[in-house]
Amino acid sequence: MSKDKQFVREITPQSEDFSKWYLDVIKKADLMSYSPVRGCIVFKPDSYEIWELMQRELDARFKETGHRNAYFPLFIPESFFQKEKEHVEGFNPELPWVTEAGGEKLEERLAIRPTSETMIGHMYSEWINSYRDLPLLINQWANVVRWEKRTQPFLRTSEFLWQEGHTAHEDEADARRETMQMLEVYREFVENIMAIPVIMGQKTPSEKFAGAVDTFSIEAMMKDGKAVQAGTSHYMGTNFAVAFDIKYLDRQNTHTYAHTTSWGVSTRLIGAMIMVHGDDRGLVIPPKIAPTQVVMIPIGPPKTREQVIARTDELFAELKKAGIRAKVDDRPDQSPGWKFNEYEMRGIPIRVELGPRDMENGQVVLVSRISGEKKIVAQENFVQEVQQLLEAIHQEMFEKAKRFRDENFTDVDTLDEMKEFLDKQRGFILAGWCGSEACEAQVKEETGATSRNIPFEPAKEKDTCLVCGEKAKHTVVFGRAY
Amino acid sequence: MSKDKQFVREITPQSEDFSKWYLDVIKKADLMSYSPVRGCIVFKPDSYEIWELMQRELDARFKETGHRNAYFPLFIPESFFQKEKEHVEGFNPELPWVTEAGGEKLEERLAIRPTSETMIGHMYSEWINSYRDLPLLINQWANVVRWEKRTQPFLRTSEFLWQEGHTAHEDEADARRETMQMLEVYREFVENIMAIPVIMGQKTPSEKFAGAVDTFSIEAMMKDGKAVQAGTSHYMGTNFAVAFDIKYLDRQNTHTYAHTTSWGVSTRLIGAMIMVHGDDRGLVIPPKIAPTQVVMIPIGPPKTREQVIARTDELFAELKKAGIRAKVDDRPDQSPGWKFNEYEMRGIPIRVELGPRDMENGQVVLVSRISGEKKIVAQENFVQEVQQLLEAIHQEMFEKAKRFRDENFTDVDTLDEMKEFLDKQRGFILAGWCGSEACEAQVKEETGATSRNIPFEPAKEKDTCLVCGEKAKHTVVFGRAY
Repeated sequence: MSKDKQFVREITPQSEDFSKWYLDVIKKADLMSYSPVRGCIVFKPDSYEIWELMQRELDARFKETGHRNAYFPLFIPESFFQKEKEHVEGFNPELPWVTEAGGEKLEERLAIRPTSETMIGHMYSEWINSYRDLPLLINQWANVVRWEKRTQPFLRTSEFLWQEGHTAHEDEADARRETMQMLEVYREFVENIMAIPVIMGQKTPSEKFAGAVDTFSIEAMMKDGKAVQAGTSHYMGTNFAVAFDIKYLDRQNTHTYAHTTSWGVSTRLIGAMIMVHGDDRGLVIPPKIAPTQVVMIPIGPPKTREQVIARTDELFAELKKAGIRAKVDDRPDQSPGWKFNEYEMRGIPIRVELGPRDMENGQVVLVSRISGEKKIVAQENFVQEVQQLLEAIHQEMFEKAKRFRDENFTDVDTLDEMKEFLDKQRGFILAGWCGSEACEAQVKEETGATSRNIPFEPAKEKDTCLVCGEKAKHTVVFGRAY
Repeated sequence: MSKDKQFVREITPQSEDFSKWYLDVIKKADLMSYSPVRGCIVFKPDSYEIWELMQRELDARFKETGHRNAYFPLFIPESFFQKEKEHVEGFNPELPWVTEAGGEKLEERLAIRPTSETMIGHMYSEWINSYRDLPLLINQWANVVRWEKRTQPFLRTSEFLWQEGHTAHEDEADARRETMQMLEVYREFVENIMAIPVIMGQKTPSEKFAGAVDTFSIEAMMKDGKAVQAGTSHYMGTNFAVAFDIKYLDRQNTHTYAHTTSWGVSTRLIGAMIMVHGDDRGLVIPPKIAPTQVVMIPIGPPKTREQVIARTDELFAELKKAGIRAKVDDRPDQSPGWKFNEYEMRGIPIRVELGPRDMENGQVVLVSRISGEKKIVAQENFVQEVQQLLEAIHQEMFEKAKRFRDENFTDVDTLDEMKEFLDKQRGFILAGWCGSEACEAQVKEETGATSRNIPFEPAKEKDTCLVCGEKAKHTVVFGRAY
């Protein structure tokens, strides 16, 4: 091993500089490259494969809940944005515009989609005629572009990958049921698959999606105490239906506007996963979305090498047969120690070590990435032990992240208390809010924290507004956010 | 059933107007909608699901052959196109340009990718340093845009979906081996999964990819005798490596240019599938990519209805358990006859009918979409019979398409013979070619047919050029193309 390589693997400690830690980790784990286009990254195979596994899980859930995938155009005519006033105001500053194509100047500029409510609204107005066409439940996997001023790999990139669900319903009740159902799908996915605990709640009016009646979100806490909005689900009311004329003949034979929803999660979840689970040794990938769940490393002197590798390959075959994503690293030119570090840095959930003594004893060593604990298990129970440990690691990751969040979560009565807390540490703050935009804005101005959401199940209810001291209308989670 | 619906299901016969038949079928089978953006279509769920099944099959093959997926930016800086002369000439006329973003005019225009050789070439030059980094085997699933003058749903749309493989190798031999391997992957997929027979061969220099040394293709014949290029695989030599400086330190410690390849298939294959297999009753979807492989229709009078539906549901559960994609249509407000027509039009490979007499006899009726033949089978062998029939339908579709192609394939000695053939019928023409661009151009000018490829296994070798009569260098397949 060259000294260069040793150096390359060094990672800035989280406590020293969390942002630098993040950039070190993603570069060193080979997750991405900066591209020559401002704010756009290349999703390298090791991150793209995580996205593929996330897609597989999400897609199955969307289909189970009755949705089908479709694909709509990348380009959106400028006039479409003008149709929904809040929507255009929200997205206009971030749009890239195609003005020339095929050697000619276009008569109407085309935006690259930042989201597809307008295009899909237009198509739905063609497709929906009768209540029999409803509910219309469609999802799209796509790239979208938002020309952001400040970008950060995965968390905020000019182009990113996502899914956007768009549904149309007969009435408010059904549309709201859908909005909540998909929020719950996201919670269940992010918690049970990505091992990230989230807070479900409603966005305040100033933080809701441009054009929505109500926006709901799941919010996660990173290891620096900052928030990432991990997923959103919007009830649009009839805003887009009116703008795009999505009308249907209802059961009473009357032309009625449909109620619509939209909901999405994106590749920013990869960034959240890194920041929630990673540590000073590198990535820690949740087992259920780890491209490689188990890395197997044969060890020991040259004379037993061939025998040990042969047995490793047999055990590898058992894992593969059981559907566990494993790989063997039997490269002779790297030491076991180097490999241990390497795969810890890459966040592989389980390392399996097998040496001559393990061979003699019919055992094998499993090492958990999250706890570092070694467990010696009988080879005959190998697959079962690995399955159990993968499950245990998922659970431990979730609990650990939840503990961290709870430890960095406080509640305050006043803005001064909140400032005091944020001076000492980072984290989330629960506080009462009177409902006025002015008070919300003052919190942001004085602390840099924004309202994350109005949680459905706050740890406690707060009675008075932290800013004006008036009676609180809501209990809100505040936090600085990515 | 309303008369409107009856009318809507009418399809122009293929023999009357093939283009109109095509447009009728895709509209009536609800595969797509025209979008408000010129040349862009919406892939509705019934076509997108076919694409998803195609993706699953292809992706598995790419991974089996050692490739991994990644994702590169949509935008390509203008200067990148200037680096490979042939490439810029080939694609410049078709590019849409982003000139403004985030409220500002861009310093350098950004093209929307028509293909990603340039962007990926740029990134590979960063990633590849040593022979140890080779071969680099990456695939991307993405949307691409080519601002075409004339478009046709699925076959040629301004935006389309595809995969593009991009690989880098130590030397020509390895890159050529890859080029051929992926062409064979395409052939195997298109023939064994889509039931479309293809002709493998090499493109003539005038028809090769802009920037390639050699382009290879698989070519399929539609039911109107025209050709669709179903997939291509390119050996780039060091053209892109030189343009983007993809150099590596080889085993002799010398800086050497890598040899690269690229290969792709797209959603145009959906159009080919429709035009190869469809008939006057509508779509015929190959079983292996049919979103619904079996539709089950309970029939008979109201008094036995409940019982028949219950048994249908049981049989449905058996299919589902066996991994067969089935659905039951037990809607009481549509007649069995209407349903039979509807699902024939939609191209579902197998229709299952179950009525009271079938119940009594412990049997069930299977109807093949491709032959229309009815087969009465014992309910106890139901799943196995369905599996066998799906396989038989695939085989029959392939054989039928192959027979059609062979019947519309001739060989000629002179351009006059070729014109005579094309006056009478449409189809492919095998002819000798001296290798001169002038002769190739003359064929195109006088017949509208282009060289499809130089087949690896021509039915016969032709000795003289059909235009100039000189000694033939190659035997070429000519045809009019989409």
